[in-house]
Amino acid sequence: MKEKVLIFDTTLRDGEQSPGASLNLQEKVEIARQLEKLNVDIIEAGFPASSPLQFEAVRQVGDESGKIVAGLCRAVEQDIKRAHEALQNARHPRLHTFISTSDIHIMGKFGHDRYGRTLEEKRDRIIRMAVDAVSYAGTLADDVEFSAEDAGRTDPVYLAEIIEAVIAAGASTVNIPDTTGYTWPSEFGKRIADLKQRVSNIDNAVISVHCHNDLGLAVANTLSSIENGARQAECSMNGIGERAGNASLEEIVMALKVRGDLHGFYTDIVTEEIYNTSRMVSSFTGLIIQPNKAIVGDNAFAHESGIHQDGMLKNRQTYEVMTPESVGVPQTTIVLGRHSGKHGLKARLNAIGHKVTGDELEKVYERFLSIADKKKEIYDDDLRVLMGDELNKPLEPLELDYLHINSGTASIPTAAVRIKAKGTTYEESSTGDGPVDACFRAIERALGIGSLLYSYSVRSTTAGRQALGEATVRLKDENRLYTGRGVSTDIIEASAKAYLQALSLRHQEEENDKNKTIDKGI
Amino acid sequence: MKEKVLIFDTTLRDGEQSPGASLNLQEKVEIARQLEKLNVDIIEAGFPASSPLQFEAVRQVGDESGKIVAGLCRAVEQDIKRAHEALQNARHPRLHTFISTSDIHIMGKFGHDRYGRTLEEKRDRIIRMAVDAVSYAGTLADDVEFSAEDAGRTDPVYLAEIIEAVIAAGASTVNIPDTTGYTWPSEFGKRIADLKQRVSNIDNAVISVHCHNDLGLAVANTLSSIENGARQAECSMNGIGERAGNASLEEIVMALKVRGDLHGFYTDIVTEEIYNTSRMVSSFTGLIIQPNKAIVGDNAFAHESGIHQDGMLKNRQTYEVMTPESVGVPQTTIVLGRHSGKHGLKARLNAIGHKVTGDELEKVYERFLSIADKKKEIYDDDLRVLMGDELNKPLEPLELDYLHINSGTASIPTAAVRIKAKGTTYEESSTGDGPVDACFRAIERALGIGSLLYSYSVRSTTAGRQALGEATVRLKDENRLYTGRGVSTDIIEASAKAYLQALSLRHQEEENDKNKTIDKGI
Repeated sequence: MKEKVLIFDTTLRDGEQSPGASLNLQEKVEIARQLEKLNVDIIEAGFPASSPLQFEAVRQVGDESGKIVAGLCRAVEQDIKRAHEALQNARHPRLHTFISTSDIHIMGKFGHDRYGRTLEEKRDRIIRMAVDAVSYAGTLADDVEFSAEDAGRTDPVYLAEIIEAVIAAGASTVNIPDTTGYTWPSEFGKRIADLKQRVSNIDNAVISVHCHNDLGLAVANTLSSIENGARQAECSMNGIGERAGNASLEEIVMALKVRGDLHGFYTDIVTEEIYNTSRMVSSFTGLIIQPNKAIVGDNAFAHESGIHQDGMLKNRQTYEVMTPESVGVPQTTIVLGRHSGKHGLKARLNAIGHKVTGDELEKVYERFLSIADKKKEIYDDDLRVLMGDELNKPLEPLELDYLHINSGTASIPTAAVRIKAKGTTYEESSTGDGPVDACFRAIERALGIGSLLYSYSVRSTTAGRQALGEATVRLKDENRLYTGRGVSTDIIEASAKAYLQALSLRHQEEENDKNKTIDKGI
Repeated sequence: MKEKVLIFDTTLRDGEQSPGASLNLQEKVEIARQLEKLNVDIIEAGFPASSPLQFEAVRQVGDESGKIVAGLCRAVEQDIKRAHEALQNARHPRLHTFISTSDIHIMGKFGHDRYGRTLEEKRDRIIRMAVDAVSYAGTLADDVEFSAEDAGRTDPVYLAEIIEAVIAAGASTVNIPDTTGYTWPSEFGKRIADLKQRVSNIDNAVISVHCHNDLGLAVANTLSSIENGARQAECSMNGIGERAGNASLEEIVMALKVRGDLHGFYTDIVTEEIYNTSRMVSSFTGLIIQPNKAIVGDNAFAHESGIHQDGMLKNRQTYEVMTPESVGVPQTTIVLGRHSGKHGLKARLNAIGHKVTGDELEKVYERFLSIADKKKEIYDDDLRVLMGDELNKPLEPLELDYLHINSGTASIPTAAVRIKAKGTTYEESSTGDGPVDACFRAIERALGIGSLLYSYSVRSTTAGRQALGEATVRLKDENRLYTGRGVSTDIIEASAKAYLQALSLRHQEEENDKNKTIDKGI
């Protein structure tokens, strides 16, 4: 008896809440397209009421996608309305509303007397708010999901009560989040089994779970809940998300697939698209994947590449429970060069998950040629980096017009820069402790600002002789992080571009910074 | 009823088998000292028979440590003898012998007729080899551990049979490894419960588990086995190890601690040393930690640093099941500067886990002063990077004597280098696609070699205005990886040093490359 588990991807919502990982509109749309190729069942595209950018992203993904597209909304009318507006042209819209149910969250978020004076009164009030929200959402959409925030720490009797009430009010999916990543798999599984027992109308809804990874147990908790009756798994690519992140989509999917013999669960994920999706998300968010990450880390199949190969390793299965091919890990092959045409580029981009046409293709092809001039062999990873850079242009960029570096063991590192911004040109030079420092100082002098540098990294993960350098700069300003990325075969130039991009983003976000106190829970 | 779980750390053995993560002798000794501060119960220091370096590392850690120190050995006399020799001065030596027990491993590794013609005969033969090995080890040491490799895929009846036999032969710890990371938590827990039922003398030994992370379930499998009777957890810092790695020590320990209410299990780990240990292991192995890694990732407590702080976050517990302080995550504070004395440096190094005295301290102090000349404020992370660089000197270094770089958007990147090796000086220059490429080409020209570059990364994780750059270069040659690391405020210089170090290591390992086909299982 095979049973399907629905994969609800929240890379674009919870994943994007990773500190410093904000995605721009185009990047979100690109990721959504790749998620469609990966064949997830539900794409949670964002939280429309939280900002205009979020609204627009949900709208565009909803307009374009053939999948169920979910928009998150607090259990209040204006949020639900906004999510509905964003999804009005979606083929399969889902309104996903949530409210806190644990005592600690209730007292923290609904402490005001207007929600009741005692905990008991507040709990009753929460149930009414949840039911009202679900009922209202039901007037706008057929597909309504309800989440009981911090369900992992919620009193089981109360949890059953509110879940029964929202199902009666029309929720077709009830989500049980372990918001703080607090539970153990055995415990969380029992919580789901308990719900199935206590909630009389539980068969009228799909049970979903949404696990956080604070104790490293998000995937195991998800599997345990599936063993106990859950049939929707909320997860994100590479396990990104708030703090230690969410359950990893790739780990859940492959655990279900590799061990189909255990219980017969399956998903509709096209597992061969896992690697492409993983790399795209990492490149766009700037969140690196550690080498020992299961499924998608560089070392996950490393014995395959011959490291520590013993004479005994004739049979792959000896140390391998799945093949690299099954998750789309590519053999490194040269795919393109300077003589490749636009058509070849387009086809190859499409194969690795980037759909580009018209003007965009023209621009990308131009960039491709300039890279191909320097770098004879263009690998898939080069294209990924290139696309990440291409999509990540801020609306109002500070542009690096000129850079020169002089440095070495016996000379004082010196940088000269010229920056263009809104038609004005700024030119400056500086010495520094190393060429990057000199370059950053020159930029700061040119723009007349102090340093906001929070972290800085460069990597060159693409294969081949002359790899592309990808620099990531994070700035911190008043407790907010801004991430900029730059790509070049010259890592100093990449660094300068990244710094300028982060500065542009900061400027931009300061402008439209209105919804600071909205609750982005679950 | 509180029950202790023993923490068996295998960072220095299985962790070091991570592709490209080889540690030198001094680094291993440093990590062992830090593991002692962390207060693990058992330190697995290496696999003495596999190489002279492994032997020496186990010997030195054994000589110095007050903890149980384990040496791995196949179930053959010469391996056991070698492990015993390495541990002969250890205060608490443990001989840890293993053999494969799953059919797939038996057929792969013991396919030859001399081990029996049928699977049945081979299985019997394996039991006799295991019993002989344990008995022999028992004549050399009081503390003998037996591991049934690939127990996760071993027939449960046969597994019980071999475990019963080795306990009768004197094994005081019996380890059940999920070598290929194949099992689910519910399944693996049942496997342990099943053993407790089937094995009549099981109470005469401690049940241990050793879980791999191929499906992302290593920690959950470990916890599930503890719920079912295991009392020793084999794990590694940051979860490093073969392929997707081992169970993370920090996740197991904190899951047990944070949820002490569930079953009353505890460990003796000084959790406040987790962060220091994690950073040391990452720095020495070059294996980065992803930001969303539980407990030790940069984002694990990110809401604490004010990202996405909502008005509601007055109560830390709302989104936090443990405090950053409980795992030793530091507040960024300026600790040292150029006027700091040797005494202050020594005390601070000691606080973050580095014990240095005498000549070593002199050398480190010299390096410290040269860094402090460039960098006004020296943070703990700077010291970590500095120590990593200091310890990572290969025996026969290629030394960067001079470097000059000229590069920029409007000029051809050019590098000039002078390298000293064994008294000879090599000088060359090259252009390239960016300054790092130019520099690497110049090095290759100077030494007359081709490119072996496999991956290259630079990071600057330390705080403050003029952060130290840490470059990691991995070379690939005939399916082996060599990792070099370099540190400087100038990332180009750091890159050049890293490249030269990796080249030195390659040269060195080619020299003493004898034990290529040894089985490094479990």
